[in-house]
Amino acid sequence: MRTIDWISAGPDSAGRIRLIDQTRLPASTAVLDIDTVGELIAAIRRLSIRGAPALGVAGGMGVALAAQRMNRQQTRAAAADIRAARPTAVNLAVGVDRALAAFDLGGPSGALQAALDIRDEEIDAGLAMASRGADLVRELAADGGGRKDRLTVMTICNTGALAAVEHGTALGVVERLHQDGNLRLAIALETRPLLQGARLTAWELDRMGADYELIVDSAAASVLAGGDVDAVLVGADRIAANGDTANKIGTLALAVAARYFGIPFLVVAPETTVDVSTASGSDIEIEDRGPGEVCSFAGVRTAPPGAQVKNPAFDVTPAELITAVVTDRRVIMQPQNMRTAAPIGA
Amino acid sequence: MRTIDWISAGPDSAGRIRLIDQTRLPASTAVLDIDTVGELIAAIRRLSIRGAPALGVAGGMGVALAAQRMNRQQTRAAAADIRAARPTAVNLAVGVDRALAAFDLGGPSGALQAALDIRDEEIDAGLAMASRGADLVRELAADGGGRKDRLTVMTICNTGALAAVEHGTALGVVERLHQDGNLRLAIALETRPLLQGARLTAWELDRMGADYELIVDSAAASVLAGGDVDAVLVGADRIAANGDTANKIGTLALAVAARYFGIPFLVVAPETTVDVSTASGSDIEIEDRGPGEVCSFAGVRTAPPGAQVKNPAFDVTPAELITAVVTDRRVIMQPQNMRTAAPIGA
Repeated sequence: MRTIDWISAGPDSAGRIRLIDQTRLPASTAVLDIDTVGELIAAIRRLSIRGAPALGVAGGMGVALAAQRMNRQQTRAAAADIRAARPTAVNLAVGVDRALAAFDLGGPSGALQAALDIRDEEIDAGLAMASRGADLVRELAADGGGRKDRLTVMTICNTGALAAVEHGTALGVVERLHQDGNLRLAIALETRPLLQGARLTAWELDRMGADYELIVDSAAASVLAGGDVDAVLVGADRIAANGDTANKIGTLALAVAARYFGIPFLVVAPETTVDVSTASGSDIEIEDRGPGEVCSFAGVRTAPPGAQVKNPAFDVTPAELITAVVTDRRVIMQPQNMRTAAPIGA
Repeated sequence: MRTIDWISAGPDSAGRIRLIDQTRLPASTAVLDIDTVGELIAAIRRLSIRGAPALGVAGGMGVALAAQRMNRQQTRAAAADIRAARPTAVNLAVGVDRALAAFDLGGPSGALQAALDIRDEEIDAGLAMASRGADLVRELAADGGGRKDRLTVMTICNTGALAAVEHGTALGVVERLHQDGNLRLAIALETRPLLQGARLTAWELDRMGADYELIVDSAAASVLAGGDVDAVLVGADRIAANGDTANKIGTLALAVAARYFGIPFLVVAPETTVDVSTASGSDIEIEDRGPGEVCSFAGVRTAPPGAQVKNPAFDVTPAELITAVVTDRRVIMQPQNMRTAAPIGA
């Protein structure tokens, strides 16, 4: 099934958003039907739906939902609220803006069509990234001399179908390698504090029948030091014009370690995540999600009462640490300028 | 109170080991009295007592406990069992061996005296490391030009009093900086999977009244990138002859990031943790503690059933990434040879 989709009884009836509630995984695969903008914003904030591509679809569908139920002014206000639900992933804002522009031109049906287009384009983009990414990983692994048939890759957070619609970004590449018989082992970082790697990526790898190993985030460096990893693959929440990339907290640590141990570090994201209006990483707003996620788990306190916590959900990897950015339309080696790095479609 | 101590009604009555049960912190400060070697080994394995210096004391006291209750042959067998309870920290083996040698020469009272000597020497070593380490951190911070009065340091795992007897290793240095009015902020990594940073280090920092911030391990790199950290301070479980250092998983990632961002990386450990009989890091046995610690928390599963897990408790930081090793007897800058790096007592 799709991570997020639009459900409607017919062209004349109001629709709703259906999504897999990712806070319930891996214990249960619960589906959430969303009828109001308030419910959608709450779902986005608590990460029932997350991942840059999926947030883009959610943003578009949120506007469509509002447009079917509210007047023009209310719809615009709702769109602003959805847009502000999370600050770092550019896709959410891009999805909202696109559906809102379509709403201005074509009313509720225009907004809905834009939302469905975003969904369909993300599905296509996933397939394209998987092809380009898998080819690049094979190429880079062969650079050492001779083709390697069985590759070991490392990834952080969840960048699979659950972060998109039907296919992932970085994990979509891993899935393609697996389908092609080229995956020896996928190493998944658990990804504190919310354990998207343990809860979601391990679940996806398990379902695809891939061999995988789950590790705590801080074990990544010693695994990379072991010399068996062919590539590190990560997603992105926003890629600035200079190639600096915001992604899940821990990505920078991985990039630094990959550089030290001489391992290719690849960012896989759709073109919709490239934000040339943001000059560099220092211009990207990093969401801090407060102490709760760090100080307790499953209702059990893990730090002293009143512990002071810094909980940035993302970090910024400087372009100089990125071997390549792989999008649905291009591969940019050693990115420096996302505007002109390579002709789109090259 | 002391993290671990020997309790006895008098010189003629059998004694017991008393320790703070660290699995219960921060929720409660429970004391555990240990009467048998079996109880001691179980306490070591489940990390009720942990930290290289404390394990050295536990090893010595374990032999003393056995010697008071068993014949010579049984005592030797018990010593071997205690020695094997955890493989990576050299202090456990060193403590056992020293008390056993004393037992061979002087019987049960010889073993006990050796155990008490190890305890007292670790207390003294903690004070010496704190002085040397705090001086070095101040010196290195001043290298940038001009003395800095308020320093920010980062540390992983727990290397405080709870890892030793009365004073810690790396956290002992932090405490000294705080006592001297030179600590702006201590940044504590939570230290997955068992959260010794969140549960124990935050608790100690809280008790000493220091300003601190708790972060997930994977946030360390972006905090170091921020440029406010003056030094990274870590403990050690075993320092090989060439300076390679085994310590809590995540230490290598910190060392790599500290190097990339140009921040001093200091290992603080007593001389008893230096193991010149181990040539290099590749000769150090790394304990893997199995999937349980990673796959569930507080009884809640966090990964799919059957998830494959790699859970190394330690990693090895190559000497080339270490700015200095600080022991109770010397400071070794850019360690390469722990045998001759500096005259003991220099």
